[in-house]
Amino acid sequence: MSVFLKRVIFLPKPGLRKYSQNLPELTKNTFKVTRGNYNYLRDEDIKHFQNVLGVSRVLTSSEDLHKYNVDWFFQVRGTSNVVLKPKTTEEVSKILSYCNENRIAICPHAGNTGMAGGSNPVFDEVVVSTELMNEIISLDENSGVIICQAGCILENIDKYVAEKNLIVPLDIGAKGSCQIGGNVSTNAGGLRMVRFGNLHGNVLGLEVVKANGDVLDCMSTLKKDNTGYHLKHLFIGSEGTLGFVTKVSLHCPPRPKFKNVAFLGLQNFDKVLKTFKFLKAELGEIISAVEVIDTPTMDFINEVVGQNSPIGDYPFYLLIETSGSNEQHDEEKLNNFFEAALNKALVLNGTVASEPAKIEALWSIRENIPNGFKICSTKMMYYDVSLPLSNYYSIVNDVTEFTKDLSERVFGFGHLGDGNIHLQIQLKDDLTDEIKKRIDPFVFDKILSYGGSISAEHGIGVIKQKYMDRLKTVNTLNLMKDLKRLLDPNKILNPYKVIV
Amino acid sequence: MSVFLKRVIFLPKPGLRKYSQNLPELTKNTFKVTRGNYNYLRDEDIKHFQNVLGVSRVLTSSEDLHKYNVDWFFQVRGTSNVVLKPKTTEEVSKILSYCNENRIAICPHAGNTGMAGGSNPVFDEVVVSTELMNEIISLDENSGVIICQAGCILENIDKYVAEKNLIVPLDIGAKGSCQIGGNVSTNAGGLRMVRFGNLHGNVLGLEVVKANGDVLDCMSTLKKDNTGYHLKHLFIGSEGTLGFVTKVSLHCPPRPKFKNVAFLGLQNFDKVLKTFKFLKAELGEIISAVEVIDTPTMDFINEVVGQNSPIGDYPFYLLIETSGSNEQHDEEKLNNFFEAALNKALVLNGTVASEPAKIEALWSIRENIPNGFKICSTKMMYYDVSLPLSNYYSIVNDVTEFTKDLSERVFGFGHLGDGNIHLQIQLKDDLTDEIKKRIDPFVFDKILSYGGSISAEHGIGVIKQKYMDRLKTVNTLNLMKDLKRLLDPNKILNPYKVIV
Repeated sequence: MSVFLKRVIFLPKPGLRKYSQNLPELTKNTFKVTRGNYNYLRDEDIKHFQNVLGVSRVLTSSEDLHKYNVDWFFQVRGTSNVVLKPKTTEEVSKILSYCNENRIAICPHAGNTGMAGGSNPVFDEVVVSTELMNEIISLDENSGVIICQAGCILENIDKYVAEKNLIVPLDIGAKGSCQIGGNVSTNAGGLRMVRFGNLHGNVLGLEVVKANGDVLDCMSTLKKDNTGYHLKHLFIGSEGTLGFVTKVSLHCPPRPKFKNVAFLGLQNFDKVLKTFKFLKAELGEIISAVEVIDTPTMDFINEVVGQNSPIGDYPFYLLIETSGSNEQHDEEKLNNFFEAALNKALVLNGTVASEPAKIEALWSIRENIPNGFKICSTKMMYYDVSLPLSNYYSIVNDVTEFTKDLSERVFGFGHLGDGNIHLQIQLKDDLTDEIKKRIDPFVFDKILSYGGSISAEHGIGVIKQKYMDRLKTVNTLNLMKDLKRLLDPNKILNPYKVIV
Repeated sequence: MSVFLKRVIFLPKPGLRKYSQNLPELTKNTFKVTRGNYNYLRDEDIKHFQNVLGVSRVLTSSEDLHKYNVDWFFQVRGTSNVVLKPKTTEEVSKILSYCNENRIAICPHAGNTGMAGGSNPVFDEVVVSTELMNEIISLDENSGVIICQAGCILENIDKYVAEKNLIVPLDIGAKGSCQIGGNVSTNAGGLRMVRFGNLHGNVLGLEVVKANGDVLDCMSTLKKDNTGYHLKHLFIGSEGTLGFVTKVSLHCPPRPKFKNVAFLGLQNFDKVLKTFKFLKAELGEIISAVEVIDTPTMDFINEVVGQNSPIGDYPFYLLIETSGSNEQHDEEKLNNFFEAALNKALVLNGTVASEPAKIEALWSIRENIPNGFKICSTKMMYYDVSLPLSNYYSIVNDVTEFTKDLSERVFGFGHLGDGNIHLQIQLKDDLTDEIKKRIDPFVFDKILSYGGSISAEHGIGVIKQKYMDRLKTVNTLNLMKDLKRLLDPNKILNPYKVIV
């Protein structure tokens, strides 16, 4: 089907900005956190930091602090009085060693794009921002290995390697502001994990500062290195609670030269699954994204930004992206797949795009979803979860049924290729603590009963911390606590997050 | 170039079997290891094990023990008096808990295909073999996730998933006898890592028994799961010294339908590197192996099994395998690449194969190499190392020069795609301790000076244990020791290996 396609820039319809610009409640109140037994910051501490960094890299004014204390999604708010901006590993080491000796809590802070409140202080932790640690140190074109400081912005790294026809094997919506150190610390997943795999596979080396200031050199640039324990993985996904990532060595594969996108309409979720299986067999190595969108989500995008499905209305939509090294081959594969899927009645309708403008237009549908939901955030509950594919969409039906008195609609969309669904509930009224207490346990129980994960991409942070006891066995929790005690005995690193 | 190709089955020429069938020296003598302060096995311990496992799964006769005490490559020999063959996690837990309480050392043992003596006892450790833990537990066809016990043989798992058009993302020479638990514990790499990535990326979950018998459930089947520390990675590549892997959950991608192989002759290593860069750009997503072979290695294979280069003699050879979902596309890409590489004078000659028999014939050249070297093992020194590509082959030249009085030849071959080279030295005389002491430090210093790794795939085991102090910084070694102390305070798990 040939359709007219245009990228829809996110611009909400008039009257829709219900989204509260008020400050969020203090995290300590929302999540009932008690301050740990840390020392309060004294003037001499500030002076010490100023000696280490210079006055200009120690922020103390409330205007400067605001953007570090509050997360971008307006879910959490801390009350830190100081932000430090080191430029070097040595400076980070000096800060941590001092804080450790003086029992001062710190909060590592990167691009502030997290969804779990992991990078914002809860009380008066010293915020240590990586934003000035933004140097690209080296790139080996032959092997595709880049070494950079933790504060490099993901998109900047990708632009840098693109000049050598390489690609950063991680792509997330926040790429323009998130930082690689934050990506590593949260084990960010994103859109193209289905193609390039996860950060545990792609990070070749890390430099990490331990709580006591010791610098841990795990900076391999090698794809194969089996000399001793693979320590770097301790710091991938532990949300800055075990160490402070200062440098990253990353493997960047060849940049695919050509991209194609198919946007398909399907009758039900069973067909979605069958189509997914078929496309894996037919398109195999060129698949770079497989996103699913349901009807409520598509309707919502239409209401908020006036964007329609370009192929008419269907119960489910699949957005499939391919990336490969031969334009003609890739187009042929995708077209053959599409035709066969139509013939097999897996797919009801669809469109295939090869021109960059059309590809952008199709992607804009998917990209507008999170922005759209932010607009109505006072009435929204969101869950970022993983499920075995057989129950990937069951959760949406379960939650729709369970919340029928409370919700307008329940939405499901996400990275089908990775079993990762973003589940959203639009409530009839503003979200209250009481509603949360009714719905959360049901959702989490259901997900766990399906063998899923209650945090696919976004981590635990402070927001899901209280659920940890339910997610892990006693032995697993004990090992996590043992590791925390081993690496950060004074618990100065990102307290109140992940494990307490 | 069209050439006649036939698979050469490994069958050494008459008179060539110099390979000693004598038992290797005891490990404790070769590597000067002192027995730890463990209790010696008493009759009542054996009785206890018999109670747990039944009499038939407790081996104590010296004939039965032989194959566990000696490694396949005849490098190490231990003196264990008992082999235990648990079938379940619960049995492993009972064994470890008992040994931990009674301070009895254990040696985890899988397929006995390692190259570092990691899975053979050094003294009288109790060998705990996973060979009867060989049950495939489940396979989710949609997501490609298989769960199996640690003792499943790699090739059997691959055959099992092949029926559902999936592939195990790990392929090593020893696949017919190595076990997945051993692969995970040694972070095995192999031939197709260049395509599918490493085990840190592909293992979704592990079940591990700790030294004290506690069972650690990290058995996720999800590709995205960011709930808490990613504990499984502690056990990937730590060679059974931190925990005993009992179950593995693995992501298996779609099985590529079509395979092609190119065998190319090149003038020098600079051309090899340029060709590699060019092929990554041209063949990108369909590359599944990139192996390099030098002239001495090819000559040697000819001497040992009478196998020639099918394209005539060249200084270097590249074996490139592609795997994809469209036969015609893949062939076209590979042929186009080959022609362009000829036109650009990157490549001097070559042949491309699509028929399975020809593909096997070309692969047999590469596969015969390790078998050939084993024949002359009394005169051979081998190193399995990783290097940045710019110095990938420099090491062969350096070692040739340094050993000119001692060596006949130096060989370099390996997984170029992963920066992994197998360096072999053929000595004029049998290898002695003295020669080893002259050559080892030079090789290791050189590799480290290039930023390489002295163990790319094969781990540290007991053979390289004494080098650990030189490989890692004090902070890194200390953290390794801290982790060992945390997870195995009585040091019962695989002592004398990796870290002591």
